[in-house]
Amino acid sequence: MNSKVRIVLVNTSHPGNIGGAARAMKNMGLDRLYLVSPKVFPSDEAVSRASGAIDLLKNAVVVNSLEEAIADCQLVIGTSARERHIPWPLVDPRQAADLVYKENLETAFVFGREDRGLTNEELQRCHYHVHIPSVETFSSLNLAAAVQVLSYELRMKSLLSVNEQPVQTKWDVPAASAEQVDYMLEHLEKVMLLTEFLDPNTPRQVMTRFRRLFQRAQLDQHEIGMLRGVLTSVEKMK
Amino acid sequence: MNSKVRIVLVNTSHPGNIGGAARAMKNMGLDRLYLVSPKVFPSDEAVSRASGAIDLLKNAVVVNSLEEAIADCQLVIGTSARERHIPWPLVDPRQAADLVYKENLETAFVFGREDRGLTNEELQRCHYHVHIPSVETFSSLNLAAAVQVLSYELRMKSLLSVNEQPVQTKWDVPAASAEQVDYMLEHLEKVMLLTEFLDPNTPRQVMTRFRRLFQRAQLDQHEIGMLRGVLTSVEKMK
Repeated sequence: MNSKVRIVLVNTSHPGNIGGAARAMKNMGLDRLYLVSPKVFPSDEAVSRASGAIDLLKNAVVVNSLEEAIADCQLVIGTSARERHIPWPLVDPRQAADLVYKENLETAFVFGREDRGLTNEELQRCHYHVHIPSVETFSSLNLAAAVQVLSYELRMKSLLSVNEQPVQTKWDVPAASAEQVDYMLEHLEKVMLLTEFLDPNTPRQVMTRFRRLFQRAQLDQHEIGMLRGVLTSVEKMK
Repeated sequence: MNSKVRIVLVNTSHPGNIGGAARAMKNMGLDRLYLVSPKVFPSDEAVSRASGAIDLLKNAVVVNSLEEAIADCQLVIGTSARERHIPWPLVDPRQAADLVYKENLETAFVFGREDRGLTNEELQRCHYHVHIPSVETFSSLNLAAAVQVLSYELRMKSLLSVNEQPVQTKWDVPAASAEQVDYMLEHLEKVMLLTEFLDPNTPRQVMTRFRRLFQRAQLDQHEIGMLRGVLTSVEKMK
């Protein structure tokens, strides 16, 4: 799926940003980089900032115009910082990723110049504009950071489409049963009476709060064992 | 809301990354930057990469330890690249942003060194680990890019939740700070040595598991008081 997505950088000034973009892409499972008339390329700074994503730089397709970079694309999405005079279909990065997955077309994400973004003419070549929702008073993202955000959303979408949980904690020990938690709480109560922390005539608020605490924590069986071990060690002191 | 979120960078080597992180934060409406023993700071390179987010650099809080940076935090989320020996509650960036908005606590996002991330001990001070779902074969994001992704998810969450009031459980007692949890754990360790549950020569696995348990439970201040009361009652038995 991601092999249908290319990242197109137009007229990039700083080669470090090309390297940073390549790294961000590779981190997120993208590998097709197109460069439209980059100011400096190839460059050592790009290699350094790519931090291992050298293959993307080596295989980057360098062309002279946006038209060439997107010629075979069926879906073109251009990053846009500001409201346009003529409103255009506008999506946020998450909606853009949804679109890509829904349409399953040969897709280009187009990123403009560091200082001026894409021209109106370039933006008009795009089916959609995507806007990263920065704050109005400080709205311009670093180019590689913008590539990171869009690539991340594509990655999240691809993982969420496979199964609903992109990241899972595999716990090392089975969860405790309600009964095991009950026994531990009874043990705790017994020890708190022994140490005279609990007054047998007191209202039972304390035990209610301990129950809430330990149920909330969703104890595993090893933790139950540790807690009961500590309680037993207190009993043995007497 | 975002005024409750701080970004903590631990032992950053490259000042450019500090600048890039500041820019990413400001783009996304965050402004509280904490630096734990940065290698080079202040620096011209940080200023240059911050590209206007100079105020964040100027107001950055520089401290000597992670403990200081998170002392008053109630929710600490650390970035983690790999599976840990003892599994920890793990979320993806979107789930992390959900958590922040649901809990509405004084929150720290902690980012580790460029080459080695956070140490196990640092990760154990976190309630949750967050993993940016990079591809396994090329998993290490640039530091500023990682800050960008998390800040972006917080921003998206804040925009999406304008119209949807998050369901909130109103807790009856304020959440405990990281420092209060630390003191309670120190007290627990002392008592476990007293009762001889802990062997002073043993590896520290037990304390790590207790830390994980009690951080996961997100203790409130009353619960801290109860736990310490029980511990004190054990000390008085002898």
